[in-house]
Amino acid sequence: MSEFERIDQLYHKGYRIIQDSRSFCFGIDAVLLADFAQIKRGERVVDLCCGNGVIPLLIAAKTQASEIFGLEIQPSSCQLARRSVSLNGEEGRIHILLGDVKVPQQELQEASFDVITVNPPYKEAGGNLQNEKEELAIARHEIFCTLQDVVARGASLLRFGGRFYMIHRPERLVDIFETMRTYHLEPKKIRMVHPRIQKEPTMVLIEGRKNGAPQLRIDPPLIVYNNEGEYTKEIHAIYKRED
Amino acid sequence: MSEFERIDQLYHKGYRIIQDSRSFCFGIDAVLLADFAQIKRGERVVDLCCGNGVIPLLIAAKTQASEIFGLEIQPSSCQLARRSVSLNGEEGRIHILLGDVKVPQQELQEASFDVITVNPPYKEAGGNLQNEKEELAIARHEIFCTLQDVVARGASLLRFGGRFYMIHRPERLVDIFETMRTYHLEPKKIRMVHPRIQKEPTMVLIEGRKNGAPQLRIDPPLIVYNNEGEYTKEIHAIYKRED
Repeated sequence: MSEFERIDQLYHKGYRIIQDSRSFCFGIDAVLLADFAQIKRGERVVDLCCGNGVIPLLIAAKTQASEIFGLEIQPSSCQLARRSVSLNGEEGRIHILLGDVKVPQQELQEASFDVITVNPPYKEAGGNLQNEKEELAIARHEIFCTLQDVVARGASLLRFGGRFYMIHRPERLVDIFETMRTYHLEPKKIRMVHPRIQKEPTMVLIEGRKNGAPQLRIDPPLIVYNNEGEYTKEIHAIYKRED
Repeated sequence: MSEFERIDQLYHKGYRIIQDSRSFCFGIDAVLLADFAQIKRGERVVDLCCGNGVIPLLIAAKTQASEIFGLEIQPSSCQLARRSVSLNGEEGRIHILLGDVKVPQQELQEASFDVITVNPPYKEAGGNLQNEKEELAIARHEIFCTLQDVVARGASLLRFGGRFYMIHRPERLVDIFETMRTYHLEPKKIRMVHPRIQKEPTMVLIEGRKNGAPQLRIDPPLIVYNNEGEYTKEIHAIYKRED
């Protein structure tokens, strides 16, 4: 391991992840998305833009998914994710693929997956990128994949009735709904994530269903911190939850 | 006054409203919408589907709008609204028109208004209507006016940059965003109304801007009842607020 690497606990059945402090380290968004996604025994999952593999690892730890693919465009992140998969002895269930979300991969057959998860880059490309390290910029900005790219690919990989789970920024919600409908992924459920109850949400969790009928359910707000500035009970539970 | 009529207080500068207990009486949705709508001094407003005129009356009481039109298709509600306007001495500022939201009225010039408000029928037409009184059914179901009708008319009445305020059901949010974009009313702000903090929202307040740029703001949740089952402080304040 390089001097910049560290091994972090995932708080689920002893799962661990290798992270590189120079690169993108997972945050609460990945944890919330892995908790929000409902994955049943034997289901097959693809995590798009998987980065260092945190979501595939959390899903492996928390669910009885039979097969979990992670797709990542950055070779360094891909290598890190593969090492974490080995560290946890999950080579049989988790497969990390190096590739572009816009290009078909032989291992990923169209219309054959039950669930897609994606924690995509949130920020639109352009603007003030030159101040960021390239790897971080790619993880955060829509450089190699846009909202439309992940929705389009997710829709094409899902079977009829399959579920699409994404976390994104609330200010993009209109674009998200429009894009999802364009690709026949009907938004079925959303949940707003507020840092505190009195604050505007900073993230939104979204569930879509391939070829679903229109009818949106909005969950009660998810509050991250209580008035004492500590994680709420629900956030504590999410960090430890096992399905 | 008939035996079914009563005069209710609006809690704003002594304004009153005549209501008919056999027909549609205003609820908290009208009060929340009138509070959510930001109306500046001298602005011209149209309230579509105005019913007994509660929203024009609240706007007259709370704001310095120069002119407020209410459009209503049911003659009985229209008469009631006009009597309330007279009761409050607001004939100079509030004009109640009998008419269909789908048909142009001579008094309402295209692209000339600053603000549209609308608390439309929430429920899709069809289904179990025969058990409801006709007047109630028209107020509650999309019989004479659909979501698309109110959005289309609102958009056509607004000037460039004008604001559209609507309260609706959260399960229709995807349809609402899609329809608004179709008519160039960009959704700019929403606020979810939850009966209690732990419950799903039952209403959503929406602000759109004619020809606005995409960027949605989501307000902190509006909670109606506290854990003791009483109105929250914010709801109490809304019932009494004056701009």
